[in-house]
Amino acid sequence: MTLKPWSECAARLVDVATGRSPADMVVRGARWVNVHSGEILGRRDAAIAAGRFAAIAEDLSYAIGPDTVVVEADGRYMMPGLCDAHMHVESGMVTVTEFARAVIPHGTTSMFIDPHEIANVLGLPGVRLMHDEALTLPVNIFVQMPSCVPSAPGLENAGAAIGPAEVAEAMTWPGIVGLGEMMNFPGVAAADARMLGEIASTMQAGKTVGGHYASPDLGRNFLGYVAGGPADDHEGTRLVDAVTRVRLGMRAMLRLGSAWYDVASQIKAVTELGLDARNFILCTDDSHSGTLVHDGHMNRVVRHAIQQGCKPVTAIQMATLNTAAHFGLERELGSIAPGRRADLILTSDLVTLPVETVIARGTVVAEQGRLVAEIPPYAYPETARGTVKLGRPLSAADFEVAAPAGAGEEVEVRVIGVVENQAPTRALTRRLPVRDGKVETDPKEDVCRIALVERHRGLGTLTNGFVHGFGYDRPCAIASTVAHDSHHMIVVGTDRDDMARAANRLGEVGGGVVCISGGEELALVELPIAGLMSDERAEIVAEKAAKLVAAMQLCGCRLNNAYMQHSLLALVVIPELRISDIGLVDVTRFEKVELFV
Amino acid sequence: MTLKPWSECAARLVDVATGRSPADMVVRGARWVNVHSGEILGRRDAAIAAGRFAAIAEDLSYAIGPDTVVVEADGRYMMPGLCDAHMHVESGMVTVTEFARAVIPHGTTSMFIDPHEIANVLGLPGVRLMHDEALTLPVNIFVQMPSCVPSAPGLENAGAAIGPAEVAEAMTWPGIVGLGEMMNFPGVAAADARMLGEIASTMQAGKTVGGHYASPDLGRNFLGYVAGGPADDHEGTRLVDAVTRVRLGMRAMLRLGSAWYDVASQIKAVTELGLDARNFILCTDDSHSGTLVHDGHMNRVVRHAIQQGCKPVTAIQMATLNTAAHFGLERELGSIAPGRRADLILTSDLVTLPVETVIARGTVVAEQGRLVAEIPPYAYPETARGTVKLGRPLSAADFEVAAPAGAGEEVEVRVIGVVENQAPTRALTRRLPVRDGKVETDPKEDVCRIALVERHRGLGTLTNGFVHGFGYDRPCAIASTVAHDSHHMIVVGTDRDDMARAANRLGEVGGGVVCISGGEELALVELPIAGLMSDERAEIVAEKAAKLVAAMQLCGCRLNNAYMQHSLLALVVIPELRISDIGLVDVTRFEKVELFV
Repeated sequence: MTLKPWSECAARLVDVATGRSPADMVVRGARWVNVHSGEILGRRDAAIAAGRFAAIAEDLSYAIGPDTVVVEADGRYMMPGLCDAHMHVESGMVTVTEFARAVIPHGTTSMFIDPHEIANVLGLPGVRLMHDEALTLPVNIFVQMPSCVPSAPGLENAGAAIGPAEVAEAMTWPGIVGLGEMMNFPGVAAADARMLGEIASTMQAGKTVGGHYASPDLGRNFLGYVAGGPADDHEGTRLVDAVTRVRLGMRAMLRLGSAWYDVASQIKAVTELGLDARNFILCTDDSHSGTLVHDGHMNRVVRHAIQQGCKPVTAIQMATLNTAAHFGLERELGSIAPGRRADLILTSDLVTLPVETVIARGTVVAEQGRLVAEIPPYAYPETARGTVKLGRPLSAADFEVAAPAGAGEEVEVRVIGVVENQAPTRALTRRLPVRDGKVETDPKEDVCRIALVERHRGLGTLTNGFVHGFGYDRPCAIASTVAHDSHHMIVVGTDRDDMARAANRLGEVGGGVVCISGGEELALVELPIAGLMSDERAEIVAEKAAKLVAAMQLCGCRLNNAYMQHSLLALVVIPELRISDIGLVDVTRFEKVELFV
Repeated sequence: MTLKPWSECAARLVDVATGRSPADMVVRGARWVNVHSGEILGRRDAAIAAGRFAAIAEDLSYAIGPDTVVVEADGRYMMPGLCDAHMHVESGMVTVTEFARAVIPHGTTSMFIDPHEIANVLGLPGVRLMHDEALTLPVNIFVQMPSCVPSAPGLENAGAAIGPAEVAEAMTWPGIVGLGEMMNFPGVAAADARMLGEIASTMQAGKTVGGHYASPDLGRNFLGYVAGGPADDHEGTRLVDAVTRVRLGMRAMLRLGSAWYDVASQIKAVTELGLDARNFILCTDDSHSGTLVHDGHMNRVVRHAIQQGCKPVTAIQMATLNTAAHFGLERELGSIAPGRRADLILTSDLVTLPVETVIARGTVVAEQGRLVAEIPPYAYPETARGTVKLGRPLSAADFEVAAPAGAGEEVEVRVIGVVENQAPTRALTRRLPVRDGKVETDPKEDVCRIALVERHRGLGTLTNGFVHGFGYDRPCAIASTVAHDSHHMIVVGTDRDDMARAANRLGEVGGGVVCISGGEELALVELPIAGLMSDERAEIVAEKAAKLVAAMQLCGCRLNNAYMQHSLLALVVIPELRISDIGLVDVTRFEKVELFV
């Protein structure tokens, strides 16, 4: 959607404000949630022209001409459209377009997206695809350039790599707002030239450096990280995390995602300690399609913040003006004020926050939770498809683990231990039986197979290992090409035939998640775009994802977030033991280790 | 002074923060005035390297090496150096260098200057001179590109003109931070292409558009002005002015200058109405050298704000972080936080605010009110001198006013009426005696002569008229080449010989202010740089200016701000009657009027 810069439509806005020209739209008789002053003001009219606010005043009937659309607020609140300050579209397993379709009815009109996952598959061209898609949408979607691809150089090979040169290139694109979460915090604290180079490219472009400091250590390493330049952080979980970040001049992003619950503890910095709220921002980071379909998006986060005792207008500032200011967009969006993009929500209650009407750039885009904007599906090019390159059909034999020469009836192996409700795994060891020179699983002790299947270069290679904690109690296999962060393919299973079938099936459909048991396909979520995203509607994806969870349960899994646990098993930046295309990785010492102890 | 960008010294800052490299300076044991969180925190150390803060923590003794300068705060407060958000150096009648020398001991470490006066004399090259001078100084001086030169096109001819092309050119200079006060508010509200063009050039450069809406009308004209794009305004005087500006998304700059007292009324928006303080900023606009020498600068404004009941940390935010954020410099200065320029003040009391130590970019620049930095005088080029071009020596006859043909013993003339303590004048009429075909003054009724002497192009032309209200009761003349905004020369006097002597004297010294009585020079302030600024120290200029005021009093003047009243008589943007090089100007109707009614 073309929206002219303020500078190019200023004359029109002035003419509307002074009464020389009628507005395109007038919202009449609203209570004005004023995020600049922090007030809720009595009945006001808002005049909109060229997709921007022209004026807000007690009576703008002079701006209503014969063609002006009049929206009657009838004393309801008008608040700015909500901003999500940091998020990954890929977490919803849908395209940017379908994500936007899903969240606009929830009142989200601005998103700051970090296409970190596609960058790991397709590199800079993948980022560009989502960037270009974002620019076609009727809401504001800014892109943060992914900073850490691969996440753990030397410990994994992703589909692509990004460095200071790619960052500098991206900074020239129109929709790039800054650098995405700098998650290599040990690198920054070590003054690593590549990481500081990416930050420098971003700073020199005058853009915002996103942070990601995932450690409870607030000592010298944290001080070093802050001195390196990241301007925000959404990885805080404790009150002290938020307080320390804000005091040191960062913005604390408080996160409520599908599986992140970091607002309640940290918002006490404002509600109990009385810190200046301007440096607190709300975000989701990761929302699954089910959350978007059934629970909401930023409206859910703002509502939650209010339920924690935050004043409504303060919570709304944290999802509007504060976010805009952080990205240098304070005069462009995030408030209902002259010149800004005309993004607003009408709601009749600031606590329960029903999203009754959503206006984006001066057009009604949703009514009563229903999208009314025409948003055509976005066609991804073929280059974004067919990214699951297995090189050859896999067979059960590929998932065999040969015992070391001279092994007896049992052999001691390293086993990845899944921990309920936590991202870190445990580095276990187990004695497993050896039969015919092959290491077998131990179903009674809940040890099954895991394989990391290379899928970016078609090498036909696998890393085989063992995992504990899923509870699978029947012949089955679950395979996923969402496999953070390098996004090869993770196959977990109790049966080698099913594992081969699952892997080959994903190769066939171009990626996704599949659950197969005894040769039968119990569930499949096709994710043909980069092996990460569907091109279907969020509702459909949510339904398929729910079916997948049910299938995993049917196979005996009782974990709360079984699929998330599955997809994080290759995340070689979070302790303790992970799997990657180079082998098993000890993520306490950041080095490859052997399967056999 | 060369200060590297954060991006270029990040590795050093990280090394200092983590303890791998010693700091250049450590400030030890200070109470931390934290403008991000709005807190005053207990004993902290601040480590400084490469002119920037590297870390702030409870104990940074690990950053102290053999060459580290240790500053003992001994429990005093460390607060960020103060920022003046909008000001004219020329009002102090000194160079940027001498202004900085005068205000650094008061704790000012950042200034946003609008060289509007020199622009009226020398145009864009004059702005560049002050811009380049600013970059040599050890404190942060950013330049706002003057927007309205001449102030009133068609009603005056200044020494130069500025339009969108000059603005676009200036936006490429390193020290330009935005557009200076857009004072042609009727132009903006009328969608004047030239004014909107200047604003567009600034917006396109991503810089800040300064406002100046000098009218109590908060109706459609104001709405039009806001829609045009100015981002701040320092012309508010009433509580409603500040409130309205902030609600509409502008920043309210509250001004306490030598003769402006606009803080007390407007800060009630925060102290009484409870508006979010983040959009309130303190500034001086105009400070005379005497104020700088005897009373202070931004420390005086902050102290005053606190005396009005503003919380100290809130008042300090209004002169530090809020200002930096407004100009997009939040990560560069305005707080004591990693990466920011190491500008700080040590003070033992946050209410009386004694400025005990001032550190700028990591160097102690003032101690106990005394400048300790070496700041050499700045040599202005010859192009900035010799700007008072009279074309020919003036004589008493030049100041004669011929009566209209056929006039009797008296004739009715328009007279500019000076109003005590106000900038607006009154448009009076008086019957004046005619002798020998010439109009004479009326000393008993306090009507004396005024002349506007063209001085930019050496045309040798004058506009003669009459003025009421100065109270001069002896033969005398006062001449000034500071004559807002076009800065020709204003001569006011009771004696034509003294008027000619005064005008010629200023031609001789290249500009300034002089008071001559009965042929004797009672006082002279030489302002050889553009006829606006001295190249002497502020103390010396303040002393000469005080002598001038005394001389004006000796001649019978009893006005509170006699010299200011004098220098504003050509300001053809403020009602009601003014004088310019094109004649008398009615500033209610914005048109030239005849002297004779």
